[in-house]
Amino acid sequence: MSGNVSINLSESNLSESIQRTRTAAIALAKLPSMAKNDALEAIAIALEHQAEMILAANQKDVIAANQANLPSALIARLKLDSNKLKSMIAGVRDVIRLADPIGDRQIHRELDAGLVLERFSCPLGVIGVIFEARPDAVTQIAALSIKSGNGIILKGGSEAVHSCEAIASVMHDALAKLPNGGVSPDVVQLLTTRAETLAILKMDRLIDLIIPRGSNQFVRYIQDNTHIPVLGHADGVCHLYVDAAADLTKAVAIAVDSKTQYPAACNAIETMLVHRAIAPNFLPLALTALQERGVELRGCDRTQKIMAINPATASDWSTEYCDLILSIKIIDSVEEAIAHITTYGSKHTEAIVTEDQAIADIFMSDIDAAGVFHNCSTRFADGFRYGFGAEVGISTNKMSPRGPVGLEGLVTYKYRLVGHGHIVASYAGQNAKAFTHLDL
Amino acid sequence: MSGNVSINLSESNLSESIQRTRTAAIALAKLPSMAKNDALEAIAIALEHQAEMILAANQKDVIAANQANLPSALIARLKLDSNKLKSMIAGVRDVIRLADPIGDRQIHRELDAGLVLERFSCPLGVIGVIFEARPDAVTQIAALSIKSGNGIILKGGSEAVHSCEAIASVMHDALAKLPNGGVSPDVVQLLTTRAETLAILKMDRLIDLIIPRGSNQFVRYIQDNTHIPVLGHADGVCHLYVDAAADLTKAVAIAVDSKTQYPAACNAIETMLVHRAIAPNFLPLALTALQERGVELRGCDRTQKIMAINPATASDWSTEYCDLILSIKIIDSVEEAIAHITTYGSKHTEAIVTEDQAIADIFMSDIDAAGVFHNCSTRFADGFRYGFGAEVGISTNKMSPRGPVGLEGLVTYKYRLVGHGHIVASYAGQNAKAFTHLDL
Repeated sequence: MSGNVSINLSESNLSESIQRTRTAAIALAKLPSMAKNDALEAIAIALEHQAEMILAANQKDVIAANQANLPSALIARLKLDSNKLKSMIAGVRDVIRLADPIGDRQIHRELDAGLVLERFSCPLGVIGVIFEARPDAVTQIAALSIKSGNGIILKGGSEAVHSCEAIASVMHDALAKLPNGGVSPDVVQLLTTRAETLAILKMDRLIDLIIPRGSNQFVRYIQDNTHIPVLGHADGVCHLYVDAAADLTKAVAIAVDSKTQYPAACNAIETMLVHRAIAPNFLPLALTALQERGVELRGCDRTQKIMAINPATASDWSTEYCDLILSIKIIDSVEEAIAHITTYGSKHTEAIVTEDQAIADIFMSDIDAAGVFHNCSTRFADGFRYGFGAEVGISTNKMSPRGPVGLEGLVTYKYRLVGHGHIVASYAGQNAKAFTHLDL
Repeated sequence: MSGNVSINLSESNLSESIQRTRTAAIALAKLPSMAKNDALEAIAIALEHQAEMILAANQKDVIAANQANLPSALIARLKLDSNKLKSMIAGVRDVIRLADPIGDRQIHRELDAGLVLERFSCPLGVIGVIFEARPDAVTQIAALSIKSGNGIILKGGSEAVHSCEAIASVMHDALAKLPNGGVSPDVVQLLTTRAETLAILKMDRLIDLIIPRGSNQFVRYIQDNTHIPVLGHADGVCHLYVDAAADLTKAVAIAVDSKTQYPAACNAIETMLVHRAIAPNFLPLALTALQERGVELRGCDRTQKIMAINPATASDWSTEYCDLILSIKIIDSVEEAIAHITTYGSKHTEAIVTEDQAIADIFMSDIDAAGVFHNCSTRFADGFRYGFGAEVGISTNKMSPRGPVGLEGLVTYKYRLVGHGHIVASYAGQNAKAFTHLDL
């Protein structure tokens, strides 16, 4: 295992080290697709060869996490098994098949004779990915970064340190063995200490984007402590609104799936809003189905009159449980559902179940969220399911990229203007020349 | 003049008032293009009718600014005359001619039978525009906001208060006279106090984007004091690199234009980097041409050996003068030019003058900036000149929108997913269904 990957850097060495990643990224940005894909295939093969070593390292982390009584949702994210590892490696190969997002000419326009504007997609530069427990994020984000020509600084949570060191060293060694003209190992760098994390948040001239993956508090902390753009979401308080005109069978199935299919995911629902007209028929069915899956239900006053469950307090409406808990509120109209979601939602994914198209149209139009869903589970909000091949995360930013973000989140563009001595003074004042603005 | 436009709101009323703009914006988001264009034409006509009143109000601001000895660059931005007013009104009509950016279906994809994903462009919601002295920004940004379906909160600098109140009241009255089904006057709101500005920076659930227009310190202050996304640039430290293989005539003309065509603009150059091989021939020509335009030159040690000018100190390299001052540094290679720009540039617009295509290619590829220019003036970095019709500002953000930003900066998108009871559990585990991912 290469010691280069995870040396403990002094803070003064850290910026030099990230500068090396930046320099390597400038070379990476110019590589043809084939060289980047070869590097990804080499990483995939190396991960296959080193599967046992990676699982053994992960086992150390899982044992330590259990001994430290870390929350079960966190341990679920931390734990790798051979299936998760296979799908991790398949994820790297999925990225090979994605179209290269770099060098795409988006604008090609003559501004005037001999003065030509072009806009090309280009990498962001260096991306810092800070995550808590999920080691399979390492390869996915690294693969997307390499494919998009970006350098990457990885910082895993202390609970995943052995897993991350193992995976990073495998990737590093695979890149180091590439022939000349390949991808430099310097494009991938692993940090391991909290001091380094705090330090890189201040390096806004060296790092172009931070992607934090983890709990609400964690993402919020990152957002509040850096000037570097942050891609991600702090909260995932998603809702399911069961309308008066809902199909009961669909509503129950969608409620169960949205809550229980993977309760730790950000696109799982936390609150179900139920129209009063359907509540007496729907809620008993939902109660049975959800309790069978071990879901604890917490209800508003009106819900508690229909069934004996724990009360939901005001703080429930804004809580992301990340667990098998669901709050329920009975409301009087789609407008009240929209108002509740506008107040408490995190603009992530919001769903309605109804057979009334007019009601669905109001909900889909007036809800302000990255995803608005009709008669399907909120769990579909995901880059793989949307057909993006892979995702760097889900953004609840209002500005794009928004929702599940694939390669487009790691790419920007720049304008190139080429003239023959053209000056603006020729296009100003009394005898101003006109621009042609002719798309080429 | 309507008193509604500029009432001094108590801070507790302020959020209610912005909520009204938000509600009006939700209705605006659904209007067809024609209704939005009718509203813009009504504003253009009203501005024409009230031209004298607006100029008189502006005159009050200019007199006060002169009495207060405000900087000449600021007074130049503040002052309206009938030409500037005409081009301001023409700018509103330019926006009418732009394509409607809302409702554009960007993705239409079947994920599986009966499960259809769409991505539509949609407005951001409510935009806060905070500017210092430039009253012509008011109508341009308001027109772009209305066209893109966004509510707008305008806050002009205290030095422009009479101008802004006059312009906003004209726009407000024009909207109030529209027939039913038009654009509500509530979509445009003017704030006038500093307390209100500070208050709206905290309203991240009511305001979706802040666009600050003004000085470096001002934009930096906004960026440092809000969690709302900020579109704009704090600095515009742009460079011109005159290469060893530069055409002397082009280089002199481009240097003069880039510095003097509008020195207060963010795309004017602050530093000229000159290759040592061309310096003895180029600098005397440049000195003459620039000093004729009243430019003060400040040079590095090597420059001062060639001509008698003031010294440039380390702080000059990072200063945006916004004035007729230019620093000059002699360097040894394109690589040194790139290194200097990487250290001191603000990723806005960087230009090279050279007849050597290989050198130009290195510069255009390795410079990290929104605009990289070859053999033309940096002053071309502008939405109008690029053919965007109008701009909301120039962004030096690394993430897009970047560079001169037109309507696309005021637009986001949302995903709509419509199913028939589809749940994710069907696509997971042993008998997982496959997605079709069929673009429609």
